[in-house]
Amino acid sequence: MTEAVLKYLVDHREEQLEALNDFLRIPSVSTDSAFKDNVCEAASFVSDYLKKIGFDRVEIEETKGHPLVYGEWLGAGNDAPTVLVYGHYDVQPADPLPLWESDPFEPTVRNGRLFARGASDDKGQVFMYLAVFEAFMKTTGKLPINVKVCIEGEEEIGSEHLYDLLQTKKAQFAADFAMISDSGMVTEEQPTILYGLKGFTGLEFTIHGPANDLHSGIYGGAIRNPLMAMAQVLASMKDEHEVVLVDGFYDDVEPLTDEERQLITTAPSEDYIKTTGVSETVSEAGYTAVEHTMGRPTLEVNGMFGGYQGEGTKTIIPASATAKLTCRLVPGQDPEKVQDGLVTHIEENLPAGVTVEIEREPLSAKAYKVDPNHPLIEKAATSYSKAFNHPSVFVRMGGSIPVVEWIDDIFNIPIVLLGFGTPDDRLHSPNESFLLANFDRGLATLVDYFNSI
Amino acid sequence: MTEAVLKYLVDHREEQLEALNDFLRIPSVSTDSAFKDNVCEAASFVSDYLKKIGFDRVEIEETKGHPLVYGEWLGAGNDAPTVLVYGHYDVQPADPLPLWESDPFEPTVRNGRLFARGASDDKGQVFMYLAVFEAFMKTTGKLPINVKVCIEGEEEIGSEHLYDLLQTKKAQFAADFAMISDSGMVTEEQPTILYGLKGFTGLEFTIHGPANDLHSGIYGGAIRNPLMAMAQVLASMKDEHEVVLVDGFYDDVEPLTDEERQLITTAPSEDYIKTTGVSETVSEAGYTAVEHTMGRPTLEVNGMFGGYQGEGTKTIIPASATAKLTCRLVPGQDPEKVQDGLVTHIEENLPAGVTVEIEREPLSAKAYKVDPNHPLIEKAATSYSKAFNHPSVFVRMGGSIPVVEWIDDIFNIPIVLLGFGTPDDRLHSPNESFLLANFDRGLATLVDYFNSI
Repeated sequence: MTEAVLKYLVDHREEQLEALNDFLRIPSVSTDSAFKDNVCEAASFVSDYLKKIGFDRVEIEETKGHPLVYGEWLGAGNDAPTVLVYGHYDVQPADPLPLWESDPFEPTVRNGRLFARGASDDKGQVFMYLAVFEAFMKTTGKLPINVKVCIEGEEEIGSEHLYDLLQTKKAQFAADFAMISDSGMVTEEQPTILYGLKGFTGLEFTIHGPANDLHSGIYGGAIRNPLMAMAQVLASMKDEHEVVLVDGFYDDVEPLTDEERQLITTAPSEDYIKTTGVSETVSEAGYTAVEHTMGRPTLEVNGMFGGYQGEGTKTIIPASATAKLTCRLVPGQDPEKVQDGLVTHIEENLPAGVTVEIEREPLSAKAYKVDPNHPLIEKAATSYSKAFNHPSVFVRMGGSIPVVEWIDDIFNIPIVLLGFGTPDDRLHSPNESFLLANFDRGLATLVDYFNSI
Repeated sequence: MTEAVLKYLVDHREEQLEALNDFLRIPSVSTDSAFKDNVCEAASFVSDYLKKIGFDRVEIEETKGHPLVYGEWLGAGNDAPTVLVYGHYDVQPADPLPLWESDPFEPTVRNGRLFARGASDDKGQVFMYLAVFEAFMKTTGKLPINVKVCIEGEEEIGSEHLYDLLQTKKAQFAADFAMISDSGMVTEEQPTILYGLKGFTGLEFTIHGPANDLHSGIYGGAIRNPLMAMAQVLASMKDEHEVVLVDGFYDDVEPLTDEERQLITTAPSEDYIKTTGVSETVSEAGYTAVEHTMGRPTLEVNGMFGGYQGEGTKTIIPASATAKLTCRLVPGQDPEKVQDGLVTHIEENLPAGVTVEIEREPLSAKAYKVDPNHPLIEKAATSYSKAFNHPSVFVRMGGSIPVVEWIDDIFNIPIVLLGFGTPDDRLHSPNESFLLANFDRGLATLVDYFNSI
């Protein structure tokens, strides 16, 4: 069966890539209302394609924002598993246009790469599922498993309406496992399975001192300086060895097992010094930089400001100082408990003579982790390895993908995160592209995987 | 002799105030080149007045910026002392104009106050000297002491060319003591002699981390965050009891004597909590807020910024963080040594993985202090007390007046700082005014003082 499906994909490669090009030509920029019609057009492209290849039920789910495309084919029967495939058809803006070597919405192939906005993130990867489902349907008249497809149009603007929709229509979207291809591989040829993502929480706080900026000569020595108070509070939160000093921060952290440290060590990793330009990496005492980014929680100051920021000198004691903090969390940590801990720490470490106003980050998320030995993950890794002729690596990522945590939260199912992007895809930047070799190897991965489960 | 002079001042009050009004009508805003001609016009007003009342030599000293008016009358002979009177004829901009209750350049009397930009700072106080010199010349044909007058036009923009001019023409400006009336009294009726001012130094430093802002999920745990490093460096500079922890900072500090602490305690002082809106004052361990502001050095963060400052959250590790620091210094401290200490402290306390770029504040100044028991100061206090019918207080101020340090540095002479402004004068703000009762009592003070030395 696999052979026929693969042959279909080879025979119809040009035709399918032309369809992908049509998909990429639609400037479905979700953040800009000028493109609202194009966003709907891209949703229609997906729903039309699903109908064309024979999905049983295809619907455009309207939201208060952009619509989501739902499609299902459940002909594999009750004994076969059901997969929920998540992806998104919306794209980032193309600006700055002058930096593009070819029109962002006129797909162009150069050096084996397909250049277009959305080529990798995420239209190209979404289309691979459509192509594979088409190949199965056209050659075998069916799919090897039951499939539910959920392709949204608001990923690039925070997936504002997704959680409520999934929650409201929980039964409709229910599946045995989920698949998401909206990420990348650690190198161009290295099959990479994401088995963990970090959670997220944060807050912004403002330290208020005097009612107005004060003359530092007249009042210096009588008034607590909010900027210095801010520095003292922040410095009390982390030591120089990058250990977070907030009470209870590490309490529920699931420790890195020896097996995971082994996995982390064996995966090829980014050369942080080369790519960021720092003189040396700095990580939590007892952990390497890669271990810390992948498997240990972090606390970062994302922004801070107060007082005079212009040229030269202005001798004031400022009225206030503000800092923005976010944490990336690992499995075990409860975002709200961590946020509570930050609030308590700030309040308890605030020096006398100033007050603090704390605004909690409303969006928070638990970390996600699936057992890399789960059979559905192992099988994905096997198919992936075969197609790429290279053993898969399992990585955890420091970033957070809200939809992963939401699917986990609502459905509590394993999520197979296998991305076919590469480090050179320039997501969100001018000259985004997708490596066509990975398109082909990705199709083979998916065919093999669907046949194996 | 005093009686005749005072009678002249009473008899010619209206005429002299009208001349002051003419002076105030000139919008001599030094910072705005649109007013360049008006600045020159104000210089001419001063030089013409000095010529009219019979000064021997009156010159407009050109600089690369605005001119300075020099005048001298040396007819009192070699046995009489020579005073250098410093003041400035330039004013702050009048913006925001809509907040003025009357035209800033059309002097108006309301409730015993003369409202106009420059009424108190410093045209009104400069004019008092002109009025008194006029009264002496018209009634006695001479002045009781030798007088050199130095009225500049760049005080509100940093007196950029003054130091070099005084240094270059040191012999011309040489005197036995100096007088400056460009300050205020602690209350409306409290004769206040400033016998000390703080010195000044500072720097700006930028901590550089990665070449660009980084994704906090991908890089958090591997890269030192410049904002946190900034917080750690700043927090290492001061403890929660407002004690500066920079090595050597207090080494050369001239301690507050019991006599001075007594002077500080007896002077009426501002209610810091009421005027600034803080919940409590905070000062160096072992010193009251007033003692600290007047007599102990300070270190303040005047501004700080880095990373994302917009609304909401942006999960980055910023490329850099910047802070601006200034210190107010007391007698004994060498500004350059203090600045060196700050630089060394920052460099030595910088955590690994980031670099620092330090820009030293080019303007620095030593603190100034004169012995409050110096006969010239004591006599000024006596005249001041008689005219205001209230014993004079001696205060040190946390602010810095560069010209005071420069006169001290170049001529090494006592400087009598007696200001006739009041706390309600609204210097640099809309509705600046000068209390006319203090104009009259100030004239009496000057007449008595010049006759007593």
